[in-house]
Amino acid sequence: MVTTDYSLGILQYIPFFYVIWSDDLLSASEISVVENTVQADNSLDPDEKKQLKLWLNKENPPADEEIKTWRQTIANSGVKLVESDTYPLASLSQRLASLRCDECDFNEHLKHIEINLGIQPNHYNHLFDVEVVHEKTSDLYDATILDGILKGEHAPVVDEFRQFLAQPTFQWDIRRNKEDFRTRILEQVQLLGKKGYGAMAYPSTYGGTDNMPAYAAIFEHLMFVDGSLAVKFGVQFGLFGGSIQKLGTKKHHDQYLSDAGKTNLLGCFAMTETGHGSNVRGIRTTATYDPTTDSIIIHTPGKNDNKEYIGNALHSTIATVFAQLIVNGKNEGVHAILVPLRNERHELLEGVTIEDNGYKLGLNGVDNGKIWFNSVSVPRKNLLDKYGEITKEGSYSSSIKNPNKRFFTMLGTLVGGRICVARGALGGAKMALTIAVKHALNRRQFNDSIKIQEDLIMDYPTHQIRLTPAIASAYVYHVVLEEMMKRYSDNSQPDKRQIETQVAGLKSVITWFANDTIQECREACGGKGYLLENRIADLKGDVDIFTTFEGDNTVLLQLAAKGILSDFKAEFNSAGFTSVLKLLQSQLSDKLTAINPLYSNKVDAEHLYNPKFHKHAFNYRTRRLTYTLAMRIRGYIKKGVPSYQAFLKVQTHLLALGKAYSTELAYSVFSEFCTTIEDETYRELLEKVGTLHALQQIHLDARWYLEQGYLGSTKSKAIRQRVERLSTELRPHIEVLVDSFGIPEHCLTAPISQ
Amino acid sequence: MVTTDYSLGILQYIPFFYVIWSDDLLSASEISVVENTVQADNSLDPDEKKQLKLWLNKENPPADEEIKTWRQTIANSGVKLVESDTYPLASLSQRLASLRCDECDFNEHLKHIEINLGIQPNHYNHLFDVEVVHEKTSDLYDATILDGILKGEHAPVVDEFRQFLAQPTFQWDIRRNKEDFRTRILEQVQLLGKKGYGAMAYPSTYGGTDNMPAYAAIFEHLMFVDGSLAVKFGVQFGLFGGSIQKLGTKKHHDQYLSDAGKTNLLGCFAMTETGHGSNVRGIRTTATYDPTTDSIIIHTPGKNDNKEYIGNALHSTIATVFAQLIVNGKNEGVHAILVPLRNERHELLEGVTIEDNGYKLGLNGVDNGKIWFNSVSVPRKNLLDKYGEITKEGSYSSSIKNPNKRFFTMLGTLVGGRICVARGALGGAKMALTIAVKHALNRRQFNDSIKIQEDLIMDYPTHQIRLTPAIASAYVYHVVLEEMMKRYSDNSQPDKRQIETQVAGLKSVITWFANDTIQECREACGGKGYLLENRIADLKGDVDIFTTFEGDNTVLLQLAAKGILSDFKAEFNSAGFTSVLKLLQSQLSDKLTAINPLYSNKVDAEHLYNPKFHKHAFNYRTRRLTYTLAMRIRGYIKKGVPSYQAFLKVQTHLLALGKAYSTELAYSVFSEFCTTIEDETYRELLEKVGTLHALQQIHLDARWYLEQGYLGSTKSKAIRQRVERLSTELRPHIEVLVDSFGIPEHCLTAPISQ
Repeated sequence: MVTTDYSLGILQYIPFFYVIWSDDLLSASEISVVENTVQADNSLDPDEKKQLKLWLNKENPPADEEIKTWRQTIANSGVKLVESDTYPLASLSQRLASLRCDECDFNEHLKHIEINLGIQPNHYNHLFDVEVVHEKTSDLYDATILDGILKGEHAPVVDEFRQFLAQPTFQWDIRRNKEDFRTRILEQVQLLGKKGYGAMAYPSTYGGTDNMPAYAAIFEHLMFVDGSLAVKFGVQFGLFGGSIQKLGTKKHHDQYLSDAGKTNLLGCFAMTETGHGSNVRGIRTTATYDPTTDSIIIHTPGKNDNKEYIGNALHSTIATVFAQLIVNGKNEGVHAILVPLRNERHELLEGVTIEDNGYKLGLNGVDNGKIWFNSVSVPRKNLLDKYGEITKEGSYSSSIKNPNKRFFTMLGTLVGGRICVARGALGGAKMALTIAVKHALNRRQFNDSIKIQEDLIMDYPTHQIRLTPAIASAYVYHVVLEEMMKRYSDNSQPDKRQIETQVAGLKSVITWFANDTIQECREACGGKGYLLENRIADLKGDVDIFTTFEGDNTVLLQLAAKGILSDFKAEFNSAGFTSVLKLLQSQLSDKLTAINPLYSNKVDAEHLYNPKFHKHAFNYRTRRLTYTLAMRIRGYIKKGVPSYQAFLKVQTHLLALGKAYSTELAYSVFSEFCTTIEDETYRELLEKVGTLHALQQIHLDARWYLEQGYLGSTKSKAIRQRVERLSTELRPHIEVLVDSFGIPEHCLTAPISQ
Repeated sequence: MVTTDYSLGILQYIPFFYVIWSDDLLSASEISVVENTVQADNSLDPDEKKQLKLWLNKENPPADEEIKTWRQTIANSGVKLVESDTYPLASLSQRLASLRCDECDFNEHLKHIEINLGIQPNHYNHLFDVEVVHEKTSDLYDATILDGILKGEHAPVVDEFRQFLAQPTFQWDIRRNKEDFRTRILEQVQLLGKKGYGAMAYPSTYGGTDNMPAYAAIFEHLMFVDGSLAVKFGVQFGLFGGSIQKLGTKKHHDQYLSDAGKTNLLGCFAMTETGHGSNVRGIRTTATYDPTTDSIIIHTPGKNDNKEYIGNALHSTIATVFAQLIVNGKNEGVHAILVPLRNERHELLEGVTIEDNGYKLGLNGVDNGKIWFNSVSVPRKNLLDKYGEITKEGSYSSSIKNPNKRFFTMLGTLVGGRICVARGALGGAKMALTIAVKHALNRRQFNDSIKIQEDLIMDYPTHQIRLTPAIASAYVYHVVLEEMMKRYSDNSQPDKRQIETQVAGLKSVITWFANDTIQECREACGGKGYLLENRIADLKGDVDIFTTFEGDNTVLLQLAAKGILSDFKAEFNSAGFTSVLKLLQSQLSDKLTAINPLYSNKVDAEHLYNPKFHKHAFNYRTRRLTYTLAMRIRGYIKKGVPSYQAFLKVQTHLLALGKAYSTELAYSVFSEFCTTIEDETYRELLEKVGTLHALQQIHLDARWYLEQGYLGSTKSKAIRQRVERLSTELRPHIEVLVDSFGIPEHCLTAPISQ
C-alpha cells in the first residue's frame, strides 16, 4: 500500500498538491501562496517542508508517477469528499490525516490554501473516485447585501416598487391576441400612472419627484413584468411626457404635464417616418405657420412621409409631432408640435389617419401605428417652443442661432430615453440569466461511470463560460448606466454633449450584449428555453428591437465615434471637419506609449488581475483607434477625397472606435465604483466580477491587440485561460450573483426557474 | 486651368489613377495590372508611359497635391459619371478625353484595368463631384444560370416543387392562435403527402423515389413557406416515417410506410424526455417484454420521465417510442417501439396521457406535446427490430453484439435528419438575406451635401460587410450539405461514422450561422424587419431552436471532436479512451509544418485569394487543435486524472476543434465543387464567393492564428481589408446572388422585399 509511504504532515497536503498539479494553471503567485503556507505551517518538520517545496518547482515538476501515487493514496483511503463542507478539500485532508491520528487538530493552514487559490468544485469534481454531494451554492455571500449595493440610494423606491408589482394586475400571462394584450398593458400603464410612478422624473409641481435616476431604476424593473409594459410606459411618460417637459415651456407644462403623468392624457411621440428613421433631419412632414389664422398646418406630403411605428398610436388622443417648421416660407428645421389626434369619444379628428402596424416579433402589447396628417391645423401655442418659437408677430426666433446646434440640442433630450433603453435591455439580460442559472442548478445531464447522479449542467465548463462572463458584464453595465443617468440628471452640468456621445456608444454595446446574452440563455436552457412559459422567448422577441429604436446601433456608434474625434467640442458633420482636424493635430503629438515586450508577455496572475492592466489596455485601444482613424481621414482629405466619402471609407473603423470607447468607459466607471464599497468582502467579490468582465472584453478584442503587438501570444492565451478559470471560481456564488439582481419572486414565473 | 496640363494620353488615365491612389489597398499584383496595361497601350507615347509608370511607384507615390490636381481636372471638366454604363469609369475617361478630340476611339485598355482591378461603385461614389445614377445591380450574371448550378441534378424536382408551392394552400399568413395555425400546417403536410412529396426518400414500393438528396432539397424550400411546415413535415416523413424505414423490417414497412408517406397514418418520434434530452442513453421510459402475453409493456416510471416536446403529438395516432428494452429482466439498451396513441375517433388509448406543450418562441404551427405511458401493452411485433429483436421464444437477439455500438448505430439513423435541420436553417438564412438585400436596394438614408437623392443603404460599407460575407457562406454551406446528403445516401458506402462526425459539426456551425445571419438581417432592415409581415421575425423565432433539436450544438460539437480524435474508427466514450490514445500516438509523429515568417506575412492579393492558402490555414488549425487537445488529455491521463474529468477540462477545446474541422470540410468541398463548373464566368464568380467566405472565416479565427504565429499582424489586417474589399466588389452582383437562391416569387411575400 503506497498510502503509508507519506508522513502524516505530508499526507494532509496531498489532496491539494494533487488538485494543483492536475490543473493547467499554476502561476508564480499561486505557487507562492502554497509555499508561504508550507513555510508558516509549524506542524511540519523541516524535512517535510523541504519535500513539499520541492514539489512546487515548476521547472522540475513532480513526475507523473508521483502524481498518480497521490491519487492512489487518496482513492485507497476510502475517505469521502463532502462538497457541502465549508472547506471541502481541507476537510478531506483532515479526514485523510485522521485515519492515522485519532485526535489531530484541524490544520488551519490548509483552509488558507483553499481560500487563496480559489479552489472550486470544478477543480476536484470527478478528480477523486469519491462520492460528491452537490450543493447548489455557497453561503459565503448574502444576496440582499449585494442587491443593496446595486440599488444604492434608490433602495427605498425600488423596494417599494418591487412590492407594488406583486399585485395581480402585473401577473404575467400569455396573450396572443394583440388587442387583448394591448388592453392589459394599457391597464398596467394606467395603474402605474395613477400611483405616480409615471411622473417620477417630472418636477413635484406636476406630480413628480424630479428623480430621473430612480425613474430609470423602476423602468428596468418593468422588464421583469413584461417588455411591452416597459416600452409603453417609456413612450407615455418618457417620450411623450418627456418631450413636453424638455421641449415645451411653462404653458405646456401647466396644461399637459400632470395629465400625462397620471395617464389622463395619453400621447405619442411621432418622430420616425417610413422614409426616414435614422436620418431624422431628413423627415418630410411639414409644419407650416399660417399667419392669417395664427395656426400651424401639419401635413404629410408624400407616400413614405407618414409617421411610422409610433408607440401608443392606437390609444393616444394627442401626439408630439416632429416636422420641418416653415415660417414665412423659410424652413427653420425640425421642431416638435403637439397635435391632437382624437376627440373625447376616441374618434380620429379630421385630417388624421392612423393605421395599426400589426403584429411584430415581440412587444405585441404595444400599439404601434402609422399616422398621416392631411393639412391638420393646430394653434401656434402648440409648438413646443423651448428652443425655437414663433412670435406673436409671426416671425421665428430661437436662442440657439446655429440651426445645426439647435437640432442636436433638441435631439439631445433623447439621451435620457437611450439610457432607459439600455437599462431595459440590461433588465432583460438579467432576467434571462437568472432563469438560465436557476435552471442549470436543477438540470442534470450525463455522468461518469462511477457516480449515480448525473452532473448539474452548471458544473460544465462550457456552461460556465456561457453564462458567467455575461453575469459579470451585467454588473458592470448596471453600474455604468446608473452613473450615466446621474450625470445626465445633474443640472449643475448643463452641457450634455459628452454624455450624449457616451450614451450613444453604451446604448449600442449594452443592447447588443443583452441580445447575445438572452440568446445564450435560450440555448443554455435547451428546448425548455423555447417555451413561452419560461419567459426567455418573450425577452428575446422584445429586447431584439432595442438595438434599433431610439437610434440604430450602427448609426449611434458612428455618432459616438464622431463625438470622440471632435473631442466633444462640436457637433460633428461633414461640414465641421476642418476644425476637428486642427484639434487632432494638436492632440496627436501626445504619442502612444510603445509597448515593452516584457509587458506584452506578462502572464502573472497579479498582473492579469490588476485593474491597471485592464484600464491601460482599454485606453490604449481607444487612443490607438482614434489616432489611426484620424490619420486615415486626414490622408483622404489631403488627396482631395470629399469628407463624406472619406467617412464612408472608414465606416467600420468608426464602429470599432465607438465600441472601444464604451468598453473603456464602462470599466473605468465600474472600477471607480468598486473603490466606494466599504465592506471588504463584497468589494473583493465585485472586483473579481469586474476582472472577469475586463479579461473577457480584452479576449474578445484579442485579434486586434495581437495585431498591434500589445498582447503577445502567451498573454493572449493566458487571458483566455483566466476567463475560464474565473468563471469556474465564481461557480459556487453564481446563484447569489443572479439573486442579487433583485428580480422579485412574483416576476420569476418561469417553471424552470423554480 | 490645370486641366490643360495633361496630355490626352495621360488625361484618360487620370480617373483611374485618382481612384487607385485615393484607396488604401494597392498590392504589387494590382500595380502590375496597371503597369502592364500602360505598357501595352500603344496609343501612349514613351514619355506618357514613363510618367504614368512613375505614378505607380508605391515607394515614392504621387504627392497629395498631384492627386488633388487630378481630382480638380475631373471636377472642372463637367463630365458626368454614369453608373449604368457597363464600364462606368472607363466611359468617364473616354468622355473626358473626348472633350479634347472629337472622335477618339474607345480605349479598350482602360476597360481592362476596370475589370481586372475590380473597381466598383463604392470606390468612386462620392469621390467625384459628379452626379451618379444608381443602378440596383449589374446584368453581368444571370440568376437562372447560377440557380441551376446550385440545384444541380435536382433541378427538375425542385422546379416542379417551386411551382407546386404557388397554390393557395401554401400562402403565408399570420396565425396567432395555435389551433388555427396547426390546422393550417396539417392541411399543408397532408397535401404534400398526398402528392407523394413526403415519401420521396422511401423505396418506390412504398410510394417513394428512393431519393433522399432530392427530399432534402425540397425540404429546404418548405422554409420559404413556413418554418412550422418544414418541421412538421420533417417529423411526419423524416423522423416518424424514417424510423420505420430505417429501424424497422419488412413487416413494418409493409404495414405502415405507404400510409405514413401519404399521411393516412400520422405519427410522432418520441425520444426526448423531460429529464433526458441530450443524454439519450439515459432515458428512463421502459419497454418490458412480458412473455406470458407475448407483448411489450411501455411505461413512464417517474416524474421527469415523460416524453417531452414531441412534434405531431396532438395529431398523431401512433408513435415511435424510444425506451430501455428489458427482456428477461435484462436491460438491452435503448430501442424503438411503435405504440398506438389514439383510436379512429382520435380518442387517447388507455394508459396514454398527452399534454400540449403550449406556445413557443416560434414554430407554433407544430403541435408539440408531452406523453406519459402507464403500462401500455403493445404486441411484440411492434418492436422496430432491424438492430435487435425479441425471438418467438422470448429471448433477445441482435446482429450487433456490442450494446454501445448498437446504440450508436440506431442513433446514426438520425444523421439524415441532422442534414435536413442544417438545410432548413440554411433556407431560413437565404430567405432572410434575400429580403434584407432587396430592402437595402430600395431603402435610402442620408446623403452628402451635393447629391439630391439619399444613398441606398446597400451602398454603405457597414451594410455590405453585414450581408455579403453571409451570402458567400450560404453558397458554401449549400454545396457542402448537398455533398453530405449525397454521401449519406450512397448505399455503396455502408459505414456512415465519418459522415456522422462531419454532420454533427456542420449542423452546429450552420445552424449558428443561420441564427446569426437572420439576426443581422433583422437589424439591417431596422424596424421594418421587426414586423411579422416582413417574415424575418418568424424566421428568427423558427430557426432559433434548430441549434437545439436533433442534437444540441454544444453536445454535437463535442461528439464531432471526439470523432476526430478517434479518427472515426470507434464510437467515443470515456471507456474507449485507451485505444484512442494509442492511435493518436502513432499519428502525432506526423509533425506540423513550421510556419515560415515570410509566409505568415505574405499579403499579396494572389496569395490571399489562393484557395491553397485557405485550405492550408484551415487544415493547420484542425491539425494543431487536434494535436494540442490530444497532448492535454494525455497529460491528464498520465497524472491519473480520470478521463471523464479530463474531458471536462478540455471541453472548450473540443468545441473549437469541432468547429475548425467543419470549417475545413465545408471549404474543401466547396473548392472541389467549383472545379466542376464548366462555365468559366460562373466558376470565377463562385470562386470569388468562396474566397470571401474563406477569408471571413480566417478573420473570425484570427486571434488564434495570431497566437500560433500562423498569421503575422500585417497579414491579419490585410485579410480584414480583403473581406471588406470583396464585399464591395460583389456589390453590383448582390441581387443576382440572392435571386440565385431561387426562392419563388410567391413565397417572397414581405412588402419590403418587393
